[in-house]
Amino acid sequence: METTLRLPSPLVPVQEAPLTPGALRLIDAYWRAANYLSVGQMYLYDNPLLREPLSLTHVKNLLLGHWGTTPGQNFIYAHLNRVIKQYDLNMLYVCGPGHGGPAVVANTYLEGTYSEVYPEISPDEAGLRKLFRQFSFPGGISSHVGPQTPGSLHEGGELGYSLSHAFGAVFDNPDLVVACVVGDGEAETGPLATAWHSNKFLNPATDGAVLPILHLNGYKISNPTVLARITPEELDQLLRGYGWTPYYVEGDEPTQMHQQMAATLDQAVADIQAIQQNAREHGDLTRPRWPVIVLKSPKGWTGPKLVDGRPNEGTFRAHQVPLAVSAGTPPEHLAQLEAWLRSYKPEELFDAEGRLLPEIAALAPQGNRRMGANPHTNGGLLLRALHLPDFCDYAVPVPVPGATQASDTQVVGRFLRDVIKLNSAPRNFRIFGPDETASNKLEAVFEATNRQWGAETTENDEFLAPSGAVLEMLSEHQCEGWLEGYLLTGRHGLFNSYEAFIHLVDSMFNQHAKWLKSTLEIPWRRNIASLNYLLTSTVWRQDHNGFTHQDPGFMDHVVNKKASIVRVYLPPDANCLLSVMDHCLRSRHYVNVIVAAKHPAPQWLNMDAAQKHCTEGIGLWPWASNDQGYEPDAVMACCGDVPTLETLAAVSILREHLPELKIRVVNVVDLLKLQRSTEHPHGLPDADYDALFTRDKPVIFAFHGYPWLVHRLTYNRANNQHMHVRGYKEEGTITTAFDMTVLNELDRFHLVMDVLDRVPQLGNRGAYLKQLLKDKLVAHKLYITRHGIDMPEIQNWQWPTANRGVSVD
Amino acid sequence: METTLRLPSPLVPVQEAPLTPGALRLIDAYWRAANYLSVGQMYLYDNPLLREPLSLTHVKNLLLGHWGTTPGQNFIYAHLNRVIKQYDLNMLYVCGPGHGGPAVVANTYLEGTYSEVYPEISPDEAGLRKLFRQFSFPGGISSHVGPQTPGSLHEGGELGYSLSHAFGAVFDNPDLVVACVVGDGEAETGPLATAWHSNKFLNPATDGAVLPILHLNGYKISNPTVLARITPEELDQLLRGYGWTPYYVEGDEPTQMHQQMAATLDQAVADIQAIQQNAREHGDLTRPRWPVIVLKSPKGWTGPKLVDGRPNEGTFRAHQVPLAVSAGTPPEHLAQLEAWLRSYKPEELFDAEGRLLPEIAALAPQGNRRMGANPHTNGGLLLRALHLPDFCDYAVPVPVPGATQASDTQVVGRFLRDVIKLNSAPRNFRIFGPDETASNKLEAVFEATNRQWGAETTENDEFLAPSGAVLEMLSEHQCEGWLEGYLLTGRHGLFNSYEAFIHLVDSMFNQHAKWLKSTLEIPWRRNIASLNYLLTSTVWRQDHNGFTHQDPGFMDHVVNKKASIVRVYLPPDANCLLSVMDHCLRSRHYVNVIVAAKHPAPQWLNMDAAQKHCTEGIGLWPWASNDQGYEPDAVMACCGDVPTLETLAAVSILREHLPELKIRVVNVVDLLKLQRSTEHPHGLPDADYDALFTRDKPVIFAFHGYPWLVHRLTYNRANNQHMHVRGYKEEGTITTAFDMTVLNELDRFHLVMDVLDRVPQLGNRGAYLKQLLKDKLVAHKLYITRHGIDMPEIQNWQWPTANRGVSVD
Repeated sequence: METTLRLPSPLVPVQEAPLTPGALRLIDAYWRAANYLSVGQMYLYDNPLLREPLSLTHVKNLLLGHWGTTPGQNFIYAHLNRVIKQYDLNMLYVCGPGHGGPAVVANTYLEGTYSEVYPEISPDEAGLRKLFRQFSFPGGISSHVGPQTPGSLHEGGELGYSLSHAFGAVFDNPDLVVACVVGDGEAETGPLATAWHSNKFLNPATDGAVLPILHLNGYKISNPTVLARITPEELDQLLRGYGWTPYYVEGDEPTQMHQQMAATLDQAVADIQAIQQNAREHGDLTRPRWPVIVLKSPKGWTGPKLVDGRPNEGTFRAHQVPLAVSAGTPPEHLAQLEAWLRSYKPEELFDAEGRLLPEIAALAPQGNRRMGANPHTNGGLLLRALHLPDFCDYAVPVPVPGATQASDTQVVGRFLRDVIKLNSAPRNFRIFGPDETASNKLEAVFEATNRQWGAETTENDEFLAPSGAVLEMLSEHQCEGWLEGYLLTGRHGLFNSYEAFIHLVDSMFNQHAKWLKSTLEIPWRRNIASLNYLLTSTVWRQDHNGFTHQDPGFMDHVVNKKASIVRVYLPPDANCLLSVMDHCLRSRHYVNVIVAAKHPAPQWLNMDAAQKHCTEGIGLWPWASNDQGYEPDAVMACCGDVPTLETLAAVSILREHLPELKIRVVNVVDLLKLQRSTEHPHGLPDADYDALFTRDKPVIFAFHGYPWLVHRLTYNRANNQHMHVRGYKEEGTITTAFDMTVLNELDRFHLVMDVLDRVPQLGNRGAYLKQLLKDKLVAHKLYITRHGIDMPEIQNWQWPTANRGVSVD
Repeated sequence: METTLRLPSPLVPVQEAPLTPGALRLIDAYWRAANYLSVGQMYLYDNPLLREPLSLTHVKNLLLGHWGTTPGQNFIYAHLNRVIKQYDLNMLYVCGPGHGGPAVVANTYLEGTYSEVYPEISPDEAGLRKLFRQFSFPGGISSHVGPQTPGSLHEGGELGYSLSHAFGAVFDNPDLVVACVVGDGEAETGPLATAWHSNKFLNPATDGAVLPILHLNGYKISNPTVLARITPEELDQLLRGYGWTPYYVEGDEPTQMHQQMAATLDQAVADIQAIQQNAREHGDLTRPRWPVIVLKSPKGWTGPKLVDGRPNEGTFRAHQVPLAVSAGTPPEHLAQLEAWLRSYKPEELFDAEGRLLPEIAALAPQGNRRMGANPHTNGGLLLRALHLPDFCDYAVPVPVPGATQASDTQVVGRFLRDVIKLNSAPRNFRIFGPDETASNKLEAVFEATNRQWGAETTENDEFLAPSGAVLEMLSEHQCEGWLEGYLLTGRHGLFNSYEAFIHLVDSMFNQHAKWLKSTLEIPWRRNIASLNYLLTSTVWRQDHNGFTHQDPGFMDHVVNKKASIVRVYLPPDANCLLSVMDHCLRSRHYVNVIVAAKHPAPQWLNMDAAQKHCTEGIGLWPWASNDQGYEPDAVMACCGDVPTLETLAAVSILREHLPELKIRVVNVVDLLKLQRSTEHPHGLPDADYDALFTRDKPVIFAFHGYPWLVHRLTYNRANNQHMHVRGYKEEGTITTAFDMTVLNELDRFHLVMDVLDRVPQLGNRGAYLKQLLKDKLVAHKLYITRHGIDMPEIQNWQWPTANRGVSVD
């Protein structure tokens, strides 16, 4: 197929060289000031204004930092300041190559926000000295655009998420423009490569705009970048193919670059405003081609041209500290550093007190228009609690345990539907998922909203609309990145995913958890809404997919992060899930992992009991136990929906065959109750733990995930040696639901045998029952390989409430 | 910047409608046969040739599988068969949407490979019955293109890696062509979105070719796909921007589609051959624009048009089982199923015995040219051992422990350099990394090879060349996917990465580990080379980067997978790393995780001692211990380079101040020695473990990673209650190397205090020493916040060999 490509022409023609000579001089001065402060941060221990000739005592002992990306980012920041003022933009800055930290620190210092947040870093020589000294210095600040940096909502330590964060920030923020610097190294990552497609999910009327600035810096640590080494035609095709309108700024001569950048930014702002006006005033929601700027400038621009005879500026060698300066380096390095610093002419930029000259400082916007002060970057400031319906209104009636069947996620879907309804005016709640919201049985939400989708639609689509509270793209990275951006700017959300594939975002979770942990320690940062994961389509029910879709290990990954941040819940039924979901949506500054079932299954607790159980997080189920008033012979603990079902089925077998055996059933909803209270804020004190689990009786623990996780949480409890955990031990295939538990020895028959093995006084009666169960297992295998489904006695098993008269009420 | 896009015209013009009427009829029959077998697999329990009218007893009780992608893949497979025969191609098939398993099973059955591998699935009616019944059935085969499927090296259970695997397969396989079906759902994932750039890393002379076939099927589970809903111009720009030459096949009318597809494949093959000829005969290594085919066909093509009055074919509703058929569904569904099955006219395709008619079967290639029989898909068949130099030749001289300083990875880099040299003829060893091979100090490899790079180069680049054994792209997903493809086709390799960011591929590792575990259970699958990770730039040394770059949790993730597959090594010095690396490169069918240091650090063992120590995997270091012949007062265990250093420093403090205290030093290289031998093949038997760690003495364990991992591995050892583990507890920032250990209480001073706390009989002398150490910690903090570097006594600390005369020799 031959196609003729139509290159969209600029929506609004603008002036080619918009800067007057005076404006040009001032913007260049601003840029030089930022560059000076950046080099100062990397090198200077003292003599911050170079009032004396530079000596080694003025240079830090250990030189750290990344120069390469920094001058380009200073250039961008200065020019963004200009257009913010000119067009009164509500803009924030996302720094993809986050190791360009010195640039953002320098700029927020120049605009005044830094000293407002950290008064000791004052706008004078003393403050400058501290500013320089603290950078990448023990007790100081990180080299990246970490949470300590005002105006940052994206650290950029792990590359790849800048664009997703930027889009997350502008959803439902129609006045916001996020300028997002994408490094050309970062652009090689998978998450970034697909994030360009975010433009198909943006509504130009109700969302804000993202202005990506692809920084073609040319090099990574020691390799060139792919996008800098393809033809200009290819790069242009690529960006247009992604649906953007690219504009190019290329060169290294400052005067000409300033004019180009100013003209291009004018153009980009004009395009954004034209698109938004068209959508908002004329109701035209046709997917627009938003502008993207490609800035091609030398790596380490304005840095040393040559170091030790080898080219530096414009090469990979400018990536970190381009020039080593210490007692052990050639003496000319010190002179070269001084010349480099003086090339920015600090004496023309700062007054006698070390304060930026007022006419230069005037380039920066005022108040909250300063990117370092934009309240969206400290989202907790803007956070409003969700309007939540009473979750009890969605309760599944459970007259007796096990009598009702329901899909837990389907039930919570109705609750979420009404959360969406109640918050449709503030527009501050969204559900994210990789095309699984319906498959995960949350379909009730589509009674209240749609999937937001800006690309083409056809008559056979369902629930697609230009605006909607659900965002679905087949990229867990995008879902996570969008949601993080949404939360970081003070809104609420939920990520629903298949349990196994949430590992795709292990590393993104890491970074977010680190952000949360760090912000807790920063007084001016406000808490944000929790990052909520609803993991379903779990390991135990992969009928359509099998082994590749079985991995419950995200919990293991999560609990390695700071206890103050992470929470893990495994509600055993729908009413518990409702209670847990309500709690998570109210919580702040956590990562909440909820593992829940989507397949119809027996329900255990009525709403009162569920609410009480979830509030405790762990508890003895008296209606399922027969140890009232006595020490049990064994504790059968369970955590997760399938383990709970199998445990109760095992208990019913024991009750039938060995009614005198005293079994206590303990159910765990809040996994971290298992840890000691000294290790996790939710952890049970030892006395409470021992009261539940005993100090010396066998505990048969049926667990949803890898069994070792329970051991890792309980290794230092008194009865550790009596804890026997069954869970997923990486055995799986396409098979029946019950057979999955058999393969992993988590099924009712194995659980009973585990009890029998640990209560030896049963003698022959135990041996007899064990043989009976072995026969059952053989019958099961024969049946499923013949019929492809589970035996009726398994499928139709019900909790024999008649066995005991204890009602759940 | 305005650019004029030149659309490359086809390299070689080919015929527009290449199929004769007879050929057309036969290829259509072949396609129908594959479609029939696919529907049969999803539905039929019996009556495989529809010799009787279809009844419910012929239908499976549980209907599972994914129809949507299947007919399109059958179409592709049939047409690939044609060109394989016509051009005698050495081709294999990668099925991105792996849930199209029925298609690949059907086709490998039709071509005969299936019955060769599984003789009971014979090419007759009885075999057909088994073929149908086993699909997604207990005891049968998975729904995906799992390892049970002949011709598969890519399961496609987790989406996103098809193209990376395909490229991995063709590196250094110049005769191989991988036809790679990319689903348009999969294409939304990050890893796939960046994998299109793989073409910048392919050498047309020395590597094979990848022919991607982007299957624009239109829908995912319940959403449309992004690439199907952008304009044709955008899609064309996108693919050209990625550097490919796209060809389009679009429609739903079979006759016209067959001609289009045949002509397009002729074109693609001609392009590939022209490119390769140009490179190989004329030495032109200019980056070519390889062909890509875009196949736009309806989802669930040839399936039911309507189900219950709603459109099915061509909509998202065709994704899984389009038509429910059971006792509980409307009776017309059964008739509709029968009509659907009969629409393929099985009576025209199979003979009386149920065998594919010979004239249809003749479309398939013969022998190893059949894609199901291509030996590259069972890479162990082609695997040749590496030529390895004697690693002892690279030993660092260690006359006494701690006397020598070296960078461990720099040393092993020299060994790897010579591995590359020795295997340059077979070309079967590659190193993969995200731009960190030099940064990770493996720079010696560039004495022997280059980074393979097909994009533009400039004079300031280093070690870039059209051909080289190192592949670097800033995408851990790509590195992992390429390496997996390389290994799966019978070669060897190493992935070097920053420790923290290897979590990016947690989920890819999962899938590969599952593949390895499953293939172990399949007799005809041959073992492949191990997947080797070298993780460096570790948590303890992130001077340039800080908290975001600190996460040692990949080990935790890895040990959840089957013990038969996973190995974890933490060599404490360079000689141990050499021994471990040699072992890993010789090993088969494991995932080996090696965590090693890159910063210069003291060396402990000479080569003899290192080799012995690594062979044992764990051991008492007598030269560092003073408990010879006695029960120790405490065991100080260490695992990892920094913990080993801090432990030895702690021991030297104890030796100086409390020389009568008997301390045993145990070092762990092979982490899984800590597990019981019943749980891991490397696990120490309890007696051996107790002999090392004692049953009741305090153990102070200094661990490289999260401390809980050691507890998880040792919870059921006798002295579990006496095990006190120090490790990374998620405290980090920019600070000095030593201060990182202080923040996490893994430093020498805390380790000594841990001993003092557990050996109470020391009384006042212990209390005095403790106060001394507290003062040291204060002095340390004051010093680093003043100077930015560690105190000289920390920096210059040496193991005081004089304290004990025990030499390491």
